[in-house]
Amino acid sequence: MTVSSDAARTYSRANGEKFLQELFEMLRIPSLSGDPAYAGDIRRMAEWLDQHMRGLGLDNVQIMPTAGHPVVYGEWLGAGPDKLTVLVYGHYDVVPAAVEDGWTSDPFEPVVRDGKIYARGATDDKGQMFIHVKALEAYLKTEGAAPVNVKFLLEGEEEVSSPNLTPFIEEHLDLLKADVCVISDTSMSHIDAPSITHSLRGMTYLEIEVEGPKEDLHSGLWGGAAHNPALVLVEMLGKLYNADNTIAVPGFYDDVVSLTDEERAMIAKTDLSEADYKAVTGVPAVWGDARFTIRERLSARPTLDINGMWSGWTGPGPKTIIPQKASAKLSSRLVANQDPHKIFTLLKDYLESIAPPTVKLSVRLLTTGRAALIPFDIPEMQAAARAYEQGWGHTPVFTRGGGSIPVVADIASLLHIPVVMMGYGLDSDGLHSPNEHYSIEMFARGIETAIVYLEELAQLSR
Amino acid sequence: MTVSSDAARTYSRANGEKFLQELFEMLRIPSLSGDPAYAGDIRRMAEWLDQHMRGLGLDNVQIMPTAGHPVVYGEWLGAGPDKLTVLVYGHYDVVPAAVEDGWTSDPFEPVVRDGKIYARGATDDKGQMFIHVKALEAYLKTEGAAPVNVKFLLEGEEEVSSPNLTPFIEEHLDLLKADVCVISDTSMSHIDAPSITHSLRGMTYLEIEVEGPKEDLHSGLWGGAAHNPALVLVEMLGKLYNADNTIAVPGFYDDVVSLTDEERAMIAKTDLSEADYKAVTGVPAVWGDARFTIRERLSARPTLDINGMWSGWTGPGPKTIIPQKASAKLSSRLVANQDPHKIFTLLKDYLESIAPPTVKLSVRLLTTGRAALIPFDIPEMQAAARAYEQGWGHTPVFTRGGGSIPVVADIASLLHIPVVMMGYGLDSDGLHSPNEHYSIEMFARGIETAIVYLEELAQLSR
Repeated sequence: MTVSSDAARTYSRANGEKFLQELFEMLRIPSLSGDPAYAGDIRRMAEWLDQHMRGLGLDNVQIMPTAGHPVVYGEWLGAGPDKLTVLVYGHYDVVPAAVEDGWTSDPFEPVVRDGKIYARGATDDKGQMFIHVKALEAYLKTEGAAPVNVKFLLEGEEEVSSPNLTPFIEEHLDLLKADVCVISDTSMSHIDAPSITHSLRGMTYLEIEVEGPKEDLHSGLWGGAAHNPALVLVEMLGKLYNADNTIAVPGFYDDVVSLTDEERAMIAKTDLSEADYKAVTGVPAVWGDARFTIRERLSARPTLDINGMWSGWTGPGPKTIIPQKASAKLSSRLVANQDPHKIFTLLKDYLESIAPPTVKLSVRLLTTGRAALIPFDIPEMQAAARAYEQGWGHTPVFTRGGGSIPVVADIASLLHIPVVMMGYGLDSDGLHSPNEHYSIEMFARGIETAIVYLEELAQLSR
Repeated sequence: MTVSSDAARTYSRANGEKFLQELFEMLRIPSLSGDPAYAGDIRRMAEWLDQHMRGLGLDNVQIMPTAGHPVVYGEWLGAGPDKLTVLVYGHYDVVPAAVEDGWTSDPFEPVVRDGKIYARGATDDKGQMFIHVKALEAYLKTEGAAPVNVKFLLEGEEEVSSPNLTPFIEEHLDLLKADVCVISDTSMSHIDAPSITHSLRGMTYLEIEVEGPKEDLHSGLWGGAAHNPALVLVEMLGKLYNADNTIAVPGFYDDVVSLTDEERAMIAKTDLSEADYKAVTGVPAVWGDARFTIRERLSARPTLDINGMWSGWTGPGPKTIIPQKASAKLSSRLVANQDPHKIFTLLKDYLESIAPPTVKLSVRLLTTGRAALIPFDIPEMQAAARAYEQGWGHTPVFTRGGGSIPVVADIASLLHIPVVMMGYGLDSDGLHSPNEHYSIEMFARGIETAIVYLEELAQLSR
């Protein structure tokens, strides 16, 4: 049986408002994975997805436990064994958001302004993940069948670097068996310039703490003979970079694979100017390693950032203490072939080597993720390019992403299948920032593209 | 009429438990001056003092408005114009405290453990201030009169550097007219080693903010070309000190008056060893300008401390952002003859000179206070020494304090009277720290010493 996409596309256009209201229900659930206080909301979100997929007629729908937050699984295998099976990966968890961070409206009460949905998770990843659910619904509600078999693997710990997903995949290799994996959790620079991400950066995320006195000290009584832990922290972190904006940690760049001229030429297709970068981010001036273009710095070069830092009195007014301790969160975006654990050791050794004897230093690994690099000349990638041409209306470019989706490397290596990253977001969606948003137009185009992709995959031989 | 201290001293011993319960009432009021959320508690504290002093029979008791928190005033002038008038200064406001900072018990529910009262403000300054109120009560309840006239000036903004006290004094010079001012808001190293502080450090307190992008950025999408504001802050603050632990700000030491050999010899009487300093503070090693002894660093040399610092994500787990901004609170303890406003300008100029063009820097003055230095060979000081000998049981030493009570310099210069700092606290009381406490024994000895001091002052001619 050959299933055409025509009726499904018509259905998706007719049901845009219904899809939106369903997405809003998801966005109202503050499914923060990094904070134990929200465990109940994570659970509620998983139950919502479970109920929703059951309602669409998927089979074998279940909330599957892990050592952390659960995976929601569902499948439709009605296309039969002669057809390909596509595994859709998405995540239903989000990063924190609070009105006081600068949100114009409640981050967990979605509102539409200028055709954009404002809510935490709108683009990362609830909106993008839902596109695939709606694409399958469009087929099932019109043709009663989809062109290929579809499995959903929806996790709740992506924003904390998926600590339990690798063991989950290892335990369920048969259940997750597929021919190709599709993930929509990346973005494009402009709505008419879609892209397929074939490379992602990895990550090493750590937390450091510098302890001095046994408690906060009165800076008048004791100041002058105690090495202030906040001062020690800034003196240490002030040595992370060299004057040329390269990372000063010995050995940090040792395993970085150099870019070829061909790769640099391809990256140049999506380069952005200093003016563009400044306009989107609002920085007063562009910064970085001047030997590389901006896009190279953002995607093909490793970074080392301070993500958070705290010490002493941070409330209003003055408080005259020498803080007992000072802490920072640091993370490094990695590229092939940097090993996240080796990088952690290098960072830890360096920090320990520059810590003075006036404090106690502790360095703790929070999360890691490997970088990923997928070839883009394979049939599953080329089928995705055709799906964009028909469903989105534009030919995509193949790009490197700067972010980290550790599961991409894991799925590719454990299930031995290509991972196709069809990002339906915009670079300017503000993910992880206040006022994260997602364009309704892109949500709709994404559903049509996802519909066409299933049809295109049906043309490929198993 | 000559009033003897005998009956008053007996009364004070008999009423220790009553005095303690009254102090507890004060300690239960969280009169934080630095946080607008506690304005109601500040008010409640002022009203408590107003009612209490009226109840003791003081005259002209009133809550007097300022541009900030009010002053509570009260007087007893029954000794007549032939006798000296002593102005007691104290403050009823406290610095913040929260159980999660490491308090063993609620900071605003005083409890006694091992003879010590644990509560925020127990030693700084509610307990010490109350000593003078109870000394006057002891005279009035026994003799019906005190040996000298007494005025109370109790303020509510000491912990935010008394921004409105100077204008208040200037407006009420007649009301506050006195022959000597006594302040109990300092401490001694050991209960049997009382001291009279004749020098205090001044202060310049500022807040700085480094802003980069217009909002928090996703470190994967944008990391590599944005100069992380937290990184900029640590790189800047990492340049506050030279390698020899002297302050790197140009001109910072220019106005510091050098210590004479005689002054160094006097300071040496109260020096403390590295082992002592480490034991009390818990630091792994002593730090500072090696050209000076520990006590000199703590009292006769200026400092520059980071009191607080914050940027980006500080909650549990990882969050992969480049923070929009990074902030710090800095304060400098000053010595004679450093001008707090000149020091602010030097700090601001230096920070601006080292800020890179990749960020926007703002430097804001929070508070200032002048250093103070009072001669110790005057009769009012010597009378205080005799009061310790009789009331406390030990001869005091004259010391330099490391903390800042800006009002000391103001009272001395505006009212043209000596200020005698009779500190009834212990260095290890943990003021401004979790588990601040005050010894009941010291509270009792303080009341007796204050009783004797009024008697001693009555011997001095006007």
